[in-house]
Amino acid sequence: MVCRHYTDVPGIDVDMEGARSVTKRVLAGPDEGTPNFAMRLFEVGAGGRTPNHVHEWEHEVFVLEGEGVAESETGERRIGPGSTLYVPPGERHGFVNAGNGTLRFICVVPLIE
Amino acid sequence: MVCRHYTDVPGIDVDMEGARSVTKRVLAGPDEGTPNFAMRLFEVGAGGRTPNHVHEWEHEVFVLEGEGVAESETGERRIGPGSTLYVPPGERHGFVNAGNGTLRFICVVPLIE
Repeated sequence: MVCRHYTDVPGIDVDMEGARSVTKRVLAGPDEGTPNFAMRLFEVGAGGRTPNHVHEWEHEVFVLEGEGVAESETGERRIGPGSTLYVPPGERHGFVNAGNGTLRFICVVPLIE
Repeated sequence: MVCRHYTDVPGIDVDMEGARSVTKRVLAGPDEGTPNFAMRLFEVGAGGRTPNHVHEWEHEVFVLEGEGVAESETGERRIGPGSTLYVPPGERHGFVNAGNGTLRFICVVPLIE
């Protein structure tokens, strides 16, 4: 069992077109030997956002803190602490920080990413 | 995109040998069409626990609230808000509420469960 506080997992700046003020921590992934999927924690600073993009894998998301907007080709939704999202494979999406603090969320992806 | 607050997802009492005061909400799973893994939110009441058991699939866990102990054949660890765990396939484990409030955590499993 690997057990730690998420702040003990190093954050990596997400240097991707369309990303602004985004940090990723891989809480459980290939380095821990996970066979099927990876749990990541994202932090989006005030004024920041993740890319509005599309890919062939799903997201399962849980919002921990902050206020934001989840963009999707099916419409926009306000998100905050306790929001949970499922973004199916092939659906365009992006997450925008719409508050003054950090938007912090868990996002799980299959290892086919 | 499916977007909702976790409290809008019905809770199911976990009626399993060794479980005490455990409720499960499936935030994203087969009902939402997830192809690979399911995100569940567990609530363990004061004095409660999940079964100490073993199975051939992994857990990826993030603790939202409360105080507890993660039991494993590799030792016990205190857990609280922000703790993150990876329990590999085949490792015996259980989660105990060691506080006075609800122990609330996310647990992701592959759909082979």
